[in-house]
Amino acid sequence: MKTDDTFVPGLEGVVASETGISLLDTEQEKIIIRGYDLIDLSKRKTYADLIYLLLEGILPADAERQAVEEQLKSHYELPAAVMDILKLLPEGTHPMDGQRTALSALAGYDEALDDRSLEANKQRAYRILGQLPAITVNSYRILNNQDPVEPDTALPYSANFLYMITGKKPTELEAQIFDRSLLLYSEHEMPNSTFTSRVIASTHSDMYGALSGAVASLKGDLHGGANEAVMHMLEQAQSANDFVDMLKNKLANKEKVMGFGHRVYMKKMDPRAKMMKESLKQLCDLHGDSSLLEMCEAGEKLMAEEKGLYPNLDYYAAPVYWMLGVPIPLYTPIFFSSRTAGLCAHIIEQHDNNRLFRPRVKYTGDRNL
Amino acid sequence: MKTDDTFVPGLEGVVASETGISLLDTEQEKIIIRGYDLIDLSKRKTYADLIYLLLEGILPADAERQAVEEQLKSHYELPAAVMDILKLLPEGTHPMDGQRTALSALAGYDEALDDRSLEANKQRAYRILGQLPAITVNSYRILNNQDPVEPDTALPYSANFLYMITGKKPTELEAQIFDRSLLLYSEHEMPNSTFTSRVIASTHSDMYGALSGAVASLKGDLHGGANEAVMHMLEQAQSANDFVDMLKNKLANKEKVMGFGHRVYMKKMDPRAKMMKESLKQLCDLHGDSSLLEMCEAGEKLMAEEKGLYPNLDYYAAPVYWMLGVPIPLYTPIFFSSRTAGLCAHIIEQHDNNRLFRPRVKYTGDRNL
Repeated sequence: MKTDDTFVPGLEGVVASETGISLLDTEQEKIIIRGYDLIDLSKRKTYADLIYLLLEGILPADAERQAVEEQLKSHYELPAAVMDILKLLPEGTHPMDGQRTALSALAGYDEALDDRSLEANKQRAYRILGQLPAITVNSYRILNNQDPVEPDTALPYSANFLYMITGKKPTELEAQIFDRSLLLYSEHEMPNSTFTSRVIASTHSDMYGALSGAVASLKGDLHGGANEAVMHMLEQAQSANDFVDMLKNKLANKEKVMGFGHRVYMKKMDPRAKMMKESLKQLCDLHGDSSLLEMCEAGEKLMAEEKGLYPNLDYYAAPVYWMLGVPIPLYTPIFFSSRTAGLCAHIIEQHDNNRLFRPRVKYTGDRNL
Repeated sequence: MKTDDTFVPGLEGVVASETGISLLDTEQEKIIIRGYDLIDLSKRKTYADLIYLLLEGILPADAERQAVEEQLKSHYELPAAVMDILKLLPEGTHPMDGQRTALSALAGYDEALDDRSLEANKQRAYRILGQLPAITVNSYRILNNQDPVEPDTALPYSANFLYMITGKKPTELEAQIFDRSLLLYSEHEMPNSTFTSRVIASTHSDMYGALSGAVASLKGDLHGGANEAVMHMLEQAQSANDFVDMLKNKLANKEKVMGFGHRVYMKKMDPRAKMMKESLKQLCDLHGDSSLLEMCEAGEKLMAEEKGLYPNLDYYAAPVYWMLGVPIPLYTPIFFSSRTAGLCAHIIEQHDNNRLFRPRVKYTGDRNL
């Protein structure tokens, strides 16, 4: 057994999987999802289309998308005991830890848990995606001593998700923008959480376990937590000038500024961020208040000039969620909910063409003590 | 950003981490743990020594080992709500899913959850290791409609663990053998579960999340489930001849035979298996019944002759656990409990010298649809 002593920290640039699901094409500056440009899809398709595309491999016809919506809705209700488990978690539990615990507990309700056939896995993925709005919103609400909310099945999937979050029926524009954010977050090649889920699935472990690991990964502040960190900065600043001063201070103190840069895009702006910036403009126009947009643009300008860093999706998703009335602690759990479409596609692909992940190490410790 | 198109399935032979914790030295046929030979340690040290060695980097003096035992015991009791959560899981839940759900829920009780300093992480590791016997045994007992058991703090950590499993005070030999099994399972370089926990920890996510992912990984039948699969075969066979026929049938049907081979050892016998085989002999002598040993030896001989494959630890740990009176569904959860010592050491090492894991992919799908 050959052990190559070449150690690449963080496996940067190392090809860990073959996949037909997605690619960050940095040369063409495109995010390819099952052959399509994600940005192009975001202009003409919905999150439900993306779920179908990710799980079935092709875009749905109208009737098929409608069937997906109905299937998701048929799974809205959580087992009562899972709601009780959320109620038992101590106050102060992070909503992602609630999400993780609920997903972990749901494994016991899957009567076909050991069936990892393509069809069983797809049905499982639709069911989990249907359950996620209730898991996400209620784990947050219960942990904050609020009553659970009931879904409104008359609304489309993503409009209902936003309704459950805010308690208000969204306008058409708000629903469209929230849907677009889910679509943009749905899949992104091989970030840490996707890698985590494939590594776990490669032992033949089931989808619930692979997703539990992925929630844990996404919770880390080097990964999913960035959108919340951005909003905490924006919330603290009172004006564009304030915000620029805050960023300058952080740079002077060598603090990491969240919402900028991405290992794979490097020196280019995340194309998803451009789409969310457009949505932010629409929301500012709607509210007749462009202060958040002005702050973000000032920050964007500063970071480009000072550091050559450009906004990633989290940077513009944060103020969009704020203007949609989403509580900050839900930003990352929503990201996870959306990404579950892509994660399930990766877990299924791993199960269907598997090789156990089992790398080696470079040992730096003592010998022969 | 360079993307090397060389795709190594399963990252076989790829160095994913630098580590001072352990190495499978296939040339010298040794498992090195913090500079020591694990097999040598198994002859003269206890699992509590290994916990200390893994977390503190050096072997403890007698007083230090005693202090570790006391610290573990001080954490035996689980929060009442975590016991209630286990009671809420549906009947038929896999005990590892119970273990995962309990570990996930425990995050909310950690008041210093966001403190990932070395000292906080070490204290957290000792606490979780102290809680694991109750999590492991009671998640199994509750899911099988048995009353939870209370620990006996008069017994050493591993003797109490075995007592909680069987409900009987173990003899000195039984306690020694069980302790040895924990020691041998405690750490093993970079198997899938360890890799999973490091990948998750690299986002700055916390120990509970990283361990939740590791349980999920170890649950897969290509990883931790092997010891249970071995015992199911042995239980079904009535004699050494029966067992050999069963294995021959499996080989003829191209079925994978669990308990043999290991990606890293390849054509050599796992040195840990030799130690467990010795323990099995002792138990057979004690019981005056060598049938399990005879079956295992016959299977070992057949697999060497027919396939050139040699037993791994799971192959001999399974009959040892059987003779110690451990219910089969607890074999893998016990493996996880023991391995948590090594996992925590890896999570701590990752937090202390971090680089986010974020590999790339080789895209095999369509383009430009």
